[in-house]
Amino acid sequence: MSLPRPTVDTLRRYFPILTWSREYTKDTLTSDVVAAVIVTIMLIPQSLAYALLAGLPAEMGLYASILPLVAYAIFGTSRALAVGPVAVVSLMTAAAVGNLAAQGTPEYIAAAITLAFISGLMLLALGLFRLGFLANFLSHPVIAGFITASGILIATSQLKHIFGISASGHNLVDLIGNLIANLGNTNPYTLVIGVASVAFLFWVRKGLKPLLLSFGLKPRMADILTKAGPVMAVAVSILLVFVFGLQDRGVAIVGNVPMGLPPLSMPSFSLELWGQLFLSAILISIIGFVESVSVAQTLAAKRRQRIVPDQELIGLGASNVAAAISGGYPVTGGFARSVVNFDAGAETPAAGAFTAIGIGLAALLLTPLLFFLPNAVLAATIIVAVLSLVDFTILKKTWAYSRVDFAAVTVTILLTLLVGVEVGVSAGVALSLVLFLYKTSRPHVAEVGLVPGTQHFRNINRHAVETSPKVVTIRIDESLYFANAHFLQDLIYDRLAKDPQIEHVVLMCSAVNEIDMSALESLEAINTRLKEMGICLHMSEVKGPVADRLKRSHFLSEISGEVFLSQYDAYMSLTAEPGDPLCMEQRKAS
Amino acid sequence: MSLPRPTVDTLRRYFPILTWSREYTKDTLTSDVVAAVIVTIMLIPQSLAYALLAGLPAEMGLYASILPLVAYAIFGTSRALAVGPVAVVSLMTAAAVGNLAAQGTPEYIAAAITLAFISGLMLLALGLFRLGFLANFLSHPVIAGFITASGILIATSQLKHIFGISASGHNLVDLIGNLIANLGNTNPYTLVIGVASVAFLFWVRKGLKPLLLSFGLKPRMADILTKAGPVMAVAVSILLVFVFGLQDRGVAIVGNVPMGLPPLSMPSFSLELWGQLFLSAILISIIGFVESVSVAQTLAAKRRQRIVPDQELIGLGASNVAAAISGGYPVTGGFARSVVNFDAGAETPAAGAFTAIGIGLAALLLTPLLFFLPNAVLAATIIVAVLSLVDFTILKKTWAYSRVDFAAVTVTILLTLLVGVEVGVSAGVALSLVLFLYKTSRPHVAEVGLVPGTQHFRNINRHAVETSPKVVTIRIDESLYFANAHFLQDLIYDRLAKDPQIEHVVLMCSAVNEIDMSALESLEAINTRLKEMGICLHMSEVKGPVADRLKRSHFLSEISGEVFLSQYDAYMSLTAEPGDPLCMEQRKAS
Repeated sequence: MSLPRPTVDTLRRYFPILTWSREYTKDTLTSDVVAAVIVTIMLIPQSLAYALLAGLPAEMGLYASILPLVAYAIFGTSRALAVGPVAVVSLMTAAAVGNLAAQGTPEYIAAAITLAFISGLMLLALGLFRLGFLANFLSHPVIAGFITASGILIATSQLKHIFGISASGHNLVDLIGNLIANLGNTNPYTLVIGVASVAFLFWVRKGLKPLLLSFGLKPRMADILTKAGPVMAVAVSILLVFVFGLQDRGVAIVGNVPMGLPPLSMPSFSLELWGQLFLSAILISIIGFVESVSVAQTLAAKRRQRIVPDQELIGLGASNVAAAISGGYPVTGGFARSVVNFDAGAETPAAGAFTAIGIGLAALLLTPLLFFLPNAVLAATIIVAVLSLVDFTILKKTWAYSRVDFAAVTVTILLTLLVGVEVGVSAGVALSLVLFLYKTSRPHVAEVGLVPGTQHFRNINRHAVETSPKVVTIRIDESLYFANAHFLQDLIYDRLAKDPQIEHVVLMCSAVNEIDMSALESLEAINTRLKEMGICLHMSEVKGPVADRLKRSHFLSEISGEVFLSQYDAYMSLTAEPGDPLCMEQRKAS
Repeated sequence: MSLPRPTVDTLRRYFPILTWSREYTKDTLTSDVVAAVIVTIMLIPQSLAYALLAGLPAEMGLYASILPLVAYAIFGTSRALAVGPVAVVSLMTAAAVGNLAAQGTPEYIAAAITLAFISGLMLLALGLFRLGFLANFLSHPVIAGFITASGILIATSQLKHIFGISASGHNLVDLIGNLIANLGNTNPYTLVIGVASVAFLFWVRKGLKPLLLSFGLKPRMADILTKAGPVMAVAVSILLVFVFGLQDRGVAIVGNVPMGLPPLSMPSFSLELWGQLFLSAILISIIGFVESVSVAQTLAAKRRQRIVPDQELIGLGASNVAAAISGGYPVTGGFARSVVNFDAGAETPAAGAFTAIGIGLAALLLTPLLFFLPNAVLAATIIVAVLSLVDFTILKKTWAYSRVDFAAVTVTILLTLLVGVEVGVSAGVALSLVLFLYKTSRPHVAEVGLVPGTQHFRNINRHAVETSPKVVTIRIDESLYFANAHFLQDLIYDRLAKDPQIEHVVLMCSAVNEIDMSALESLEAINTRLKEMGICLHMSEVKGPVADRLKRSHFLSEISGEVFLSQYDAYMSLTAEPGDPLCMEQRKAS
């Protein structure tokens, strides 16, 4: 049976697996399996830990690392993205669901599953309607600031597990306050395990690989062993708790983790719950997508591959829906994990499916071993992982480069730390947009003159240029639209009030990319006012699309002067002697 | 005693009355008094009618027309603006307060007074912090659409008074539905009075002035008599009701209006009420300000005067605070009334103060006469006044000129009519901004070449231009910022993928008014990627402020090619034979 060509193309577009699976070879298989083994080793403790961070039972971390990975392997376009639970989204899940139900209750779990479902549907919808561009409205600095602040919040939120005390809160002030208030209840055994784990994991990151290499191990093997650091910490700590019965001395342990594959789960369809989760789901979807796409793009560029952002939305959407129907919680592409997957040689999304098999086997076979795993070790894993996300250089960079970006980052970081993740990132996005609009509403404007010996016009305040007393040329460095329509009027009237010699005003439109209806009305008003004053209004270097638009109005027939192709033409015509060949009609009238 | 100069300037800035009162002469006085008399005649029925529209007792309309006018006379900068109750703001007041309390209750009145107070404080704050530019984000078409839709809503909401039935609702569907449902209760006497009033008032607008002129009256006198049309309708209808006892036949009348000057009132300081009114107050403040400023600007331009928008905020803020402490409700500058004031010869804001005296006298002396005034006549006044606001040509204009503006107008009109004023105008503003951002996120981009015989570069698809196979010049017609940072990367990579001959990419930045941090990172990524491909990246016509910014980053030292002053320089250098003098370092490396 052969399908018609357009059907095949559509199928390929929505199912990238159909494309890459056709070129699948034994070599690719080997590479993918090796990468999957390494990622699995890394993912087992991470998935448990992130579930803990989200306030969910440990097994939900495993569940979120099985079916969602298979879904992404079918629908995703990145060859190296490793999908699953990640730190920031887990924190956001805790913040969103924590407002609605108490941790440990069935309502809390149901809300987390529903959050994954809503977020999945949103991502799918954005992908199907090709609205991926919306993610562009998160500026790089805002994301960087948000990730840094989230890293600090997450690390702080895990300190309670290191001390073996309870302390809750969704912002830094609450977290630290509650930590200090409960510090008296510190469990010494937990503290020793926690601090030792953190120290060990940091050492693994920095010191283990050089050590292994100096022992003569091959770099590849040294790499794998380094990645297995958290698994070692997990294994050793389980053994210690078991042997010394530390659970009876107050060391909090993971406890009973159900054995077996993920259960089938159903999201809630309560309209009230959907309403309460709606905004959180938007934020989680967008943050998850942006984080995921940026790592996917970076990795794809390294191998000269391309990803398709709109299809990525579909891939991540499918993953989240898969999470929701298999007892998981919101997932996305993880930064560190994807880099490991890439470095380990993953060549196709099949590596993700093999990882899912690995985690599935763990869920089937290893869960009884996790009974004695101390929470403090999982917390240590999280702390070490997220501290690598913390990077304040963005503050320095933006301070040097752009105060507007600096303001957006600072607000994002401060509000994320002091109020919470949702407020922080929303404020960052809102502030970026408002500041952008503010800038465009008071555009840079230059009066320009001819650079001698060229046909080029530059700012009279920055360059030695030639001008004429009766011609003033104003270059507007912004599109003309409703937010700056009044600005233009004020500007021109103010300029003319200063100088009675002026006979011609030329608006140099090389930087005007749009003239909207409001701006058109302002131009009409300017034209009328200038006519009354006996001054001609001209335009130069009007771009094609803008000129096309103007042709649909009456403005071009009403303008008192001319529209010149180039500013040089305008200047030459208007300064030519004798007489003013242009604007005759109006000269006669006055 | 003489004050230091800066103090005098500051006082003059915040109290424009100090400036114009120094030039006040007998002639100005005469002009202002004549204008005040005409406006008073017009304002008496209007103020009663708009109070009715806002769901408030008739006397609150009078109260809102006394102290607020005095406050504006002190703080306002427009010489002709007539402040007081206006139709659209009255409708918005009804919508805002109607959600919180039932009409006719003390809570309803208290909420309206509080709304004026909050709105006044907001306007004052915006003025003191010079945030008047925020009003620019309301595009002309959105305002035009909103005013038109409000006019229809207002006229429809008054039909119940014409029929003498009760019918409520804040949108067209509810209003019409309730009207039809209650049509059986129509009071024939009321209907006759209502229809006759509407017909009479329309005839006054169109037919009275020509008739009076043909009788030999002077135009000035004819004008005044025409403006007195509503007062005539009021007087005649009062007489009719009184003589025939129509109030006993079911004709709704205004009833007891307290005699005397406005009482001192206190806004509520309930935090809950402030919270509930907050968003409505923002919308009323902004809509009121925009309407007021646009008429003030138009009138000022006619006499070559200027208004100061930030001080206008203070003037309107003071007026609303004055309304709140003297038993009024939100006020702003009215369109029709200001034009009448201007045409009647008002020369200074003192005309407003004299109008206040006129309304004060009416409140002191005439209120007993208003007892028998039928609501239907007031409704007729409103209907005739607002139908002149309805103007659908904005749909035609925007359709021809810009689909984006058309979409914003259509959404504003439809949502205002079908949902309500607050949702309508908010959606219009939000949509304008989103569409603007959307446009800038996918900017127009042109590949350009040299127009032969000039130094000018234009789009290769629109003009016959000269190009070189190894140099591609891309002109980006938009500022580079976070929303289009990815777009640029995709664009350049796609362009290069098509053409292996390319050795130089020139970004022509004549239309780039800003490169923010996100875009800088994209440029760095592009530069690195191009370096790897053995292609040089150059820039040309980078504007002063953008270049200054770039100098603060490492980009200019990392860029593989050069930054040229003009595109012509770039093209000449890069196409010059033999060899490529530029980008040497990288040539050596490759």
